[in-house]
Amino acid sequence: MDPNHEILFEPVRIGPKTLRNRFYQVPHCSGFGTEKPWTQAAHRGVKAEGGWAAVCTEYAPFSRDSDEAPLIAARFWDEDDMRCLRLMTDKAHEHGALAGLELHHTGAHAANNVTRLPALGPSQLASDLEPHVVAKAMEPRDIRRVQDDWADAAKRARDCGFDIVYVYGAHSYLPMQFLSRFYNKRTDRYGGALENRARFWVETLERVKDAVGTDCAVATRIAVDALGLAGIEVDEALAFVRLANHLVDLWDVNVGSIAYWSKDSGTSRYFEEGYQLEWTGRVREATDKPIVGVGRLTNPDHMASIIRSGKWDLIGSARPSIADPFLPQKIAEGRVDEIRECTGSNVCIMKVDGHGHLGCIQNATAGEEYRRGWHPERFDRAGNADRAVLVVGAGPAGMECAVTLGKRGFEAVHLVEAEPDIGGRLRWVRRLPTLGDWGRIVDWRKVQLQKLKNVEVITGTRLTADGVRDYGAPIVVIATGSRWSGDGIQAATHEPIDGADASLPYVMTPEQVMEQGKRPPGLRVAVYDAEGYFVGPGIAELLAKEGVETHLVTNFDVVSPTSDLTLEGPMLRRHLHEEGVQMYRGVTIDRIEPGRVTGADEYDEAFSLDVDGIVLVTQQVSDDRLYHELTRDPAALEASGIEALYRIGDCVAPRMISEAIFDGHRLAREIDGADPSVPLPFERERGVPAVDPLITR
Amino acid sequence: MDPNHEILFEPVRIGPKTLRNRFYQVPHCSGFGTEKPWTQAAHRGVKAEGGWAAVCTEYAPFSRDSDEAPLIAARFWDEDDMRCLRLMTDKAHEHGALAGLELHHTGAHAANNVTRLPALGPSQLASDLEPHVVAKAMEPRDIRRVQDDWADAAKRARDCGFDIVYVYGAHSYLPMQFLSRFYNKRTDRYGGALENRARFWVETLERVKDAVGTDCAVATRIAVDALGLAGIEVDEALAFVRLANHLVDLWDVNVGSIAYWSKDSGTSRYFEEGYQLEWTGRVREATDKPIVGVGRLTNPDHMASIIRSGKWDLIGSARPSIADPFLPQKIAEGRVDEIRECTGSNVCIMKVDGHGHLGCIQNATAGEEYRRGWHPERFDRAGNADRAVLVVGAGPAGMECAVTLGKRGFEAVHLVEAEPDIGGRLRWVRRLPTLGDWGRIVDWRKVQLQKLKNVEVITGTRLTADGVRDYGAPIVVIATGSRWSGDGIQAATHEPIDGADASLPYVMTPEQVMEQGKRPPGLRVAVYDAEGYFVGPGIAELLAKEGVETHLVTNFDVVSPTSDLTLEGPMLRRHLHEEGVQMYRGVTIDRIEPGRVTGADEYDEAFSLDVDGIVLVTQQVSDDRLYHELTRDPAALEASGIEALYRIGDCVAPRMISEAIFDGHRLAREIDGADPSVPLPFERERGVPAVDPLITR
Repeated sequence: MDPNHEILFEPVRIGPKTLRNRFYQVPHCSGFGTEKPWTQAAHRGVKAEGGWAAVCTEYAPFSRDSDEAPLIAARFWDEDDMRCLRLMTDKAHEHGALAGLELHHTGAHAANNVTRLPALGPSQLASDLEPHVVAKAMEPRDIRRVQDDWADAAKRARDCGFDIVYVYGAHSYLPMQFLSRFYNKRTDRYGGALENRARFWVETLERVKDAVGTDCAVATRIAVDALGLAGIEVDEALAFVRLANHLVDLWDVNVGSIAYWSKDSGTSRYFEEGYQLEWTGRVREATDKPIVGVGRLTNPDHMASIIRSGKWDLIGSARPSIADPFLPQKIAEGRVDEIRECTGSNVCIMKVDGHGHLGCIQNATAGEEYRRGWHPERFDRAGNADRAVLVVGAGPAGMECAVTLGKRGFEAVHLVEAEPDIGGRLRWVRRLPTLGDWGRIVDWRKVQLQKLKNVEVITGTRLTADGVRDYGAPIVVIATGSRWSGDGIQAATHEPIDGADASLPYVMTPEQVMEQGKRPPGLRVAVYDAEGYFVGPGIAELLAKEGVETHLVTNFDVVSPTSDLTLEGPMLRRHLHEEGVQMYRGVTIDRIEPGRVTGADEYDEAFSLDVDGIVLVTQQVSDDRLYHELTRDPAALEASGIEALYRIGDCVAPRMISEAIFDGHRLAREIDGADPSVPLPFERERGVPAVDPLITR
Repeated sequence: MDPNHEILFEPVRIGPKTLRNRFYQVPHCSGFGTEKPWTQAAHRGVKAEGGWAAVCTEYAPFSRDSDEAPLIAARFWDEDDMRCLRLMTDKAHEHGALAGLELHHTGAHAANNVTRLPALGPSQLASDLEPHVVAKAMEPRDIRRVQDDWADAAKRARDCGFDIVYVYGAHSYLPMQFLSRFYNKRTDRYGGALENRARFWVETLERVKDAVGTDCAVATRIAVDALGLAGIEVDEALAFVRLANHLVDLWDVNVGSIAYWSKDSGTSRYFEEGYQLEWTGRVREATDKPIVGVGRLTNPDHMASIIRSGKWDLIGSARPSIADPFLPQKIAEGRVDEIRECTGSNVCIMKVDGHGHLGCIQNATAGEEYRRGWHPERFDRAGNADRAVLVVGAGPAGMECAVTLGKRGFEAVHLVEAEPDIGGRLRWVRRLPTLGDWGRIVDWRKVQLQKLKNVEVITGTRLTADGVRDYGAPIVVIATGSRWSGDGIQAATHEPIDGADASLPYVMTPEQVMEQGKRPPGLRVAVYDAEGYFVGPGIAELLAKEGVETHLVTNFDVVSPTSDLTLEGPMLRRHLHEEGVQMYRGVTIDRIEPGRVTGADEYDEAFSLDVDGIVLVTQQVSDDRLYHELTRDPAALEASGIEALYRIGDCVAPRMISEAIFDGHRLAREIDGADPSVPLPFERERGVPAVDPLITR
């Protein structure tokens, strides 16, 4: 270990409990909750194994009037929920970590879609998060009931093995709603002056502390600045910390609110590592109790300097712990270069909130620990490890496949790339404005490939079908990727755009712009984004920065709807606006001519723009020529000794980077199975009736 | 029974099976699938009991490359899934109905969020439904594999008790994708001429028919006109029907596509009952096999005339069977006036797709059959039925509560309403343009209230607190509703708008416009919609129709985002545009003065409109004065003999109409419990680890 990092491994006492080091996995959503208890336990358990001193659940609502469905929370309603989470506390303890339960009440934001109860809030105000939710103004008996429930839930948390129980207020949930004048307009003893607004939170802490006595540490999570209306500002936060300090064993601090969660879970596009310190670094002024903060930290030197500064006692982590569950252990072992650093893409959040199951752009095993039995750091030697493997194409899928094959003990893996460097599309994506940290996807794999002595990387070599056949590897994996279409083929029409042809000087693909430096023959350009994520806005920003008059046209209702799923949308649009990019929504382009692009708006009325060129971000197309050339001649394949031919990633079907990486990983994990081209089934978690006999005919 | 309706009760033979009558619950989503097997069985079982001759599941994907998550489908992957659906087939048979399984492959639209596989399609084209999905162009072996899977799934369907198996192509799923030139650009024997494009579907039907022999009827569902690009037109549909007719026992016909599902599940705002007949009424030209069609039919005279016309053999139903599972039985018993008619609001779809669990604006028991044990037509006599109940306020919650109390056998229920008629806000909502069918919510309850001799309705009587105390009822339920705020208080600011005051001539609330006929003092008006559903657009349309220059301003990214969840959004916006309503998105209004409203756009830049008046659709506020007056004096309550005081619906917290009705129903169902103010827990369906002993301390 680097001696500079030793401070990170000092134990820290929080109330009656001791954390073995300063790495703390703060509560974060997963899509597991108490609905997928085995997955929950496996996911947190892997982090405990990787060295985190504590692992926490996501938010755990204990009252039926705080129902997050369809989002999945760690509902902590009844004994069955205790049984579910017991799996997790056992796993944490098995690996020497403490387990925390983030007890929670959504308050005025609760849609209660499944329980169908009204939301509860300090005052009757429409939620700034959830449409059509207007809270019931809590009556005194509602306040008492929620506090009773909280204390009762804390006791049950203790009984199910949790070491840390939360009174979760951050992100503008119920305790913060009482504390904030934005939500609290009461005129009774729970409203008005700070002491009154703090009363709900303080009383709840008292009740919880009484409930768990010295059996658990009591943590509270507070956003010390909402960075907007929906909470409090930092001076008031410090005043609250002073008020409640005697009741709290651990201050878990952050910024933002749930409606502006983007300011807490800030992406690398718009937030620097450690950016929250500007606000959370001030909490020490108000307390000498342990403090845990977050800020997408992956650099141990930075972590150590924060601890030395005295600002925080613990390095909190959500996303970096997903990207690399073994981050603490790697620091402890001096393997800092092997940390799989979080890219700050928030693909995890898209997956949790949009897909209902956690995943990670960097770590293909995240969310797969239980259901596919994948461990991020352990790999069985493949049954066919003696067979040489040729992987053609070193983009996301090919790199990941080669690394994973290497870890599975294959004796000879060759990763052959046509371009002078590996990375595939990431070679240029990382050069788009603000997307530099996505390069970490390549960087980590480069280090791994260097360390794996059984994997050879050959760049600048474009293999033909003959080249593949003559290579001498009995197992071949084609990973030749995809390219953006130059003819404007798009989802809305499934036809090319009239006049679109990227061999013309005024029609460009993203690769032409980024790899070949092609630019419009004039100072006005349209970027047509029919894909809806980062490429169109990224190129628009790049060209605008170069001084081109840039018009970003999209057929979607908003610019870059996918960025809303990664919490980037509003910032991205504001950013483009500030860069001077003109934006047009709901427009389909159907004709390109010199000096002009035309189409129709959402009401089918004519749309036209006078521009000197257009960049087409409409659809990617697989580069599957090599694969098809090989499969067309099975006899030649057999004659050349090729026993198995697979393809992975975008050359099968263009997809998100996270999924291309998953695909490469998946094949490598299952390459010694009966039919590696078909993924193995995975475990599902649900209630199944015991009907017996099943078959009646 | 009306003799005119007898034709609806003739049995119909479909291949080897016989339907007992002509009522057929077509496949529809529920949020249950194979994830909530007991709820699935109970929901379909109640319909079987209510007289439907067949009940079908929702779409049932059998391949892992057709994964709908996070939407819930009847995944039919393995034996556990068979166990889950066995509960449903048993329930259907118990009540004399056939059970159908809608075997399905999403094809080119499959996001495969959980399985993480690429989508499969006839050609490599970006999905017009699902962002970031670009299919793998199916290789011949992919085609064979999916067909093998389909046949195997059909056998398993038979073994798990299904009588009808589907080859589902409608809504632009895989068989339709092969049939449609929009999706199919192949040049092999599966592309080109109609016979080639039909090949995938025909071969699949052959495989399925071979698989189930004479054990099951084979149904196929086809959208006979996509009403847009994403499928085929009706002439080609008829040609396909002729081609495949020998393989099909039942033609399940509709219109639209999945991207334009709005044209199949058409809401009452934009589609007449039976509107699909224009297209599906032509299928008879091509077949003499049984045909089932849909079109939100609730009128038995209309149904009988369709059958007599020979166009269809069966009356298909999805939404009307949710609103009234006993629709067939009520027709059979001549109780046509008691049919709880579907309003065509698509709140069911919002709940299934948005909330993950079916519900209904009309039928509070929909989706609650298993988990709360509620039956739509059976009510236990309440333990305290001898106590008189006073319900104050006859809006959605009050009406539903009084009806349900009546059915639970209360000896005396008084429903007292201040206005001259019952209905609450629905009295004016039903007068908004295109919202007339929402009046069915009131109409059904009026009939019930007339028939329930133990419920007395008293209108035009505004009760004071003294009036309630002196009324003589020991149980009192307050249901006084809510009103739109006149000061512009809104979610974004939680403060009134500067200058907003509905006592001014140029500031209006929705109720003032609709109930009092208040209009702007001039011909230009702004409607400010910070709620995002039907009220703002409805009032804008009404005023535009009256010749007022109407500006609809919303703080949301799109006009009426909630209408997108009910499939109405694009039509609603186009409709407003055609009515001449000017729309502004992403704008927050923060100041009103005579002749002008001002605010800020999404980039915080100044926004201003010169108008003569403004209608504020910002937030509803509970009318809870009566309730608080009563609770403030518990001694007086007790002295007056009031044993229990409850409140329900909007006077607790403003909410959607469906939820206000639910609340009224819920209280009446549980009013004889230990604490009726707190809803009883409901059953959850999931896997729970058997940890024993649970309690370790």
